[in-house]
Amino acid sequence: MAEKLTPRSEDFSKWYTEVVQRAEMADYSPVRGCMVIRPYGYALWENIQQSLDRRFKETGHQNAYFPLFIPYSFIQKEAEHVKGFAPQLAVVTHGGGQELEEPLVVRPTSEAIIGHMFAQWIRSYRDLPLLINQWCNVVRWEMRTRLFLRTTEFLWQEGHTAHATYEEAEEETLRMLEIYRDFAENEAAIPVIVGHKSESEKFAGALRTYTIEAMMGNKWALQAATSHNLGQNFAKAFEIRYLDRNNQLQYCWTTSWGLSTRFIGAIIMVHGDDQGLKMPPRLAPIQVIVVPIWKSDEEKERVLTKVEEIKGQLSDFRLKVDDREEYTPGWKFNEWEMRGVPLRIEIGPRDVEADQVVLARRDTGEKMPAPMARLSEQVRSLLDDIQVNMFRMAKKFMDDNTYHLDDYEEFKRILEEKGGFIIAPWCESAECEAAIKEDTKATIRCIPFGQEGPAGACIYCGKEARVKALFARAF
Amino acid sequence: MAEKLTPRSEDFSKWYTEVVQRAEMADYSPVRGCMVIRPYGYALWENIQQSLDRRFKETGHQNAYFPLFIPYSFIQKEAEHVKGFAPQLAVVTHGGGQELEEPLVVRPTSEAIIGHMFAQWIRSYRDLPLLINQWCNVVRWEMRTRLFLRTTEFLWQEGHTAHATYEEAEEETLRMLEIYRDFAENEAAIPVIVGHKSESEKFAGALRTYTIEAMMGNKWALQAATSHNLGQNFAKAFEIRYLDRNNQLQYCWTTSWGLSTRFIGAIIMVHGDDQGLKMPPRLAPIQVIVVPIWKSDEEKERVLTKVEEIKGQLSDFRLKVDDREEYTPGWKFNEWEMRGVPLRIEIGPRDVEADQVVLARRDTGEKMPAPMARLSEQVRSLLDDIQVNMFRMAKKFMDDNTYHLDDYEEFKRILEEKGGFIIAPWCESAECEAAIKEDTKATIRCIPFGQEGPAGACIYCGKEARVKALFARAF
Repeated sequence: MAEKLTPRSEDFSKWYTEVVQRAEMADYSPVRGCMVIRPYGYALWENIQQSLDRRFKETGHQNAYFPLFIPYSFIQKEAEHVKGFAPQLAVVTHGGGQELEEPLVVRPTSEAIIGHMFAQWIRSYRDLPLLINQWCNVVRWEMRTRLFLRTTEFLWQEGHTAHATYEEAEEETLRMLEIYRDFAENEAAIPVIVGHKSESEKFAGALRTYTIEAMMGNKWALQAATSHNLGQNFAKAFEIRYLDRNNQLQYCWTTSWGLSTRFIGAIIMVHGDDQGLKMPPRLAPIQVIVVPIWKSDEEKERVLTKVEEIKGQLSDFRLKVDDREEYTPGWKFNEWEMRGVPLRIEIGPRDVEADQVVLARRDTGEKMPAPMARLSEQVRSLLDDIQVNMFRMAKKFMDDNTYHLDDYEEFKRILEEKGGFIIAPWCESAECEAAIKEDTKATIRCIPFGQEGPAGACIYCGKEARVKALFARAF
Repeated sequence: MAEKLTPRSEDFSKWYTEVVQRAEMADYSPVRGCMVIRPYGYALWENIQQSLDRRFKETGHQNAYFPLFIPYSFIQKEAEHVKGFAPQLAVVTHGGGQELEEPLVVRPTSEAIIGHMFAQWIRSYRDLPLLINQWCNVVRWEMRTRLFLRTTEFLWQEGHTAHATYEEAEEETLRMLEIYRDFAENEAAIPVIVGHKSESEKFAGALRTYTIEAMMGNKWALQAATSHNLGQNFAKAFEIRYLDRNNQLQYCWTTSWGLSTRFIGAIIMVHGDDQGLKMPPRLAPIQVIVVPIWKSDEEKERVLTKVEEIKGQLSDFRLKVDDREEYTPGWKFNEWEMRGVPLRIEIGPRDVEADQVVLARRDTGEKMPAPMARLSEQVRSLLDDIQVNMFRMAKKFMDDNTYHLDDYEEFKRILEEKGGFIIAPWCESAECEAAIKEDTKATIRCIPFGQEGPAGACIYCGKEARVKALFARAF
């Protein structure tokens, strides 16, 4: 247990797998491609859920639940959709001891089944917008899996909405994208690049896919959440129609948007270091770990009495006391640093005497005494500071490793020698996109928002480009 | 929409299906046996979840997540378990376009997969007790389905714990049963009979199953939650062992316990009446519905200004304002009565002038004016009163329809003519149990707790009985 983690700089992938398991975030299961999310990982997911769910409800969305199984014929109704998902489907062929007449697909995403239900529920413009969200498990068959990042089954939320006009659907798509950006940056302390996907990378069946992309500790990108304007594609496939104010039958405009347990992988890979995890305080399952220190029984009693006082003062925080006898304080310091608890409180007999504790920050390693009198205030302010500092560090790392280039040789050299994000002019042709991927393994993560003026010459073919794209290796 | 519900007394089953759909609690889906839980039904489930989850965490349990798929060979490891669940399994035979080497079962319950993981995680007595809960979907193939009550897929929580001794496992089993009882009675206002199941009705693989049984509006019983002492059956099947303080390898003692979306069916069937649903205030998705009344635009403005004030005063409650223009106040009264909102606030121009509102209770139909000055206080006290009154009414109904009998002819006559719960001596033989079921369709719901002294002669065979059992027709 006291074995050292593989340093992150030495083998990022090995570090990741080790830290996920050692911190008891998740474990492999005997079912190929499926993981077990352990309590410490699931507590992080619960905090993510709460934080997002509040935002969804504040913007008028309601949760609902749709069937796990989808008739195969439903998946086929939207042509692009089936093309995108067919290779990844898990199929139930037998139920209750009988072979089924029509095989059932375990949902890889729920546009098809929800589209079908929307068609039953929506009658007139009065029923619009219909704003639904679902928290559930989905299954996409995977050959090579990695805990949290790529698993056959994962947990997520999928929002599904229907609107009267294109404009309203587009507004919704961007509203939810902004919620994801706000959540990633302000709760998870993960800076992101916001933009839209290229045609080849968009969701199977969407008109347009928007994304937030984050830079991991190895300088690869990770798609942290997506929001899709589905146009009328699913409305037409599933006959989602409404009577407008003039009593004319119209197709709806729909959207969908999702964030999954993959996001936990992003938190680990953005913030972690050679010591292990670093949890952003706002989402941390444990915000404060208290390690009492004693030698004699008499000291123990005095220290633990003080610990009760600390618990009383800090009842607003997610706090845990590690008073196990079988481990030394030093071992506990390492353990909770590895598990990424933002703030540690050490308290020994001399601290009790001085009516103080010692605070240790996980982000900077800094240690400082704190008088009991102002403990709650100081903990609050330190946690806020750690949250801001973690974002700042991650932002600096992303900025320092982002290159604005217009020369393809340089592009290849940088990707080869340094890695990172490259922003470069792109002519929007799928050929150039594919050629660059073939050469460098870098894909277009998005076409970032906020571009103005001419982009320059396409980094690959030299033709005039209207936009710059963000290129990177990605998980 | 304004069509009348089938009266509950006329056709209970039809009333149930109508009210579930009309109140938009749930809907049928195109997937056989699977339902869609609509936002109003899901909001009730979220309140149930919150209320239980808090109790689970207060008693030291942590949430986690285990795979949806279970290798078929795992289900077979515990002999009774596979016998019980085999006929109901949904089986995935294809994944990612390939036939699987070993078919995967969609979890009907997770003892097998969790048992396997517990065996990896538990090493010594220090790791015990291990107290885990999971919120998830499960699948049990059903031929005849009914919304919420019996569906192929349903949502639930399943607790799974491992302990060092039989006594600790038994204590845990009873602790969780008591949590279910407390939840049912104090949150859902559903009185229950607490006891243990007969051998033939216990969970497949359990040593002993405890249950809470409630009486529905048609006098049938519904098993509202169960808690199982699994003994060492699963520990032996999955090799869940620990080193005790003397360094000896011992098998663990495990438990499991669950409550599902079926409980929503109980809430509907216990409290509902000819007007529709009646939601217990503590769990109601909407506790207070505000119906503003106006004729002219000028009145509208005055009334809606007051409604804002009401919202401000009642921000602690789950409140909704129905200010739709296309429906009359009378239509809205019926609609929200049908959907079971415990308290209605009516406010018209004259109320604005008198600085008051009119309150209408869903449980008694009573209407009363309430001055704005004390509104929040009065709403709080009325909701508390409704909660207590709903429990009292349900308890009286159950008590009035429970018969203590010792004559089998009387037993049959009462079940035939009146229905209800019958408490009668039983010799504990499976033969008598089966014969009574064959005769009357009544099953043993449980052997109630708190029995003292001799029970009398078995109601069926006349042999001396140690216990009395609760017999009833059941969902």
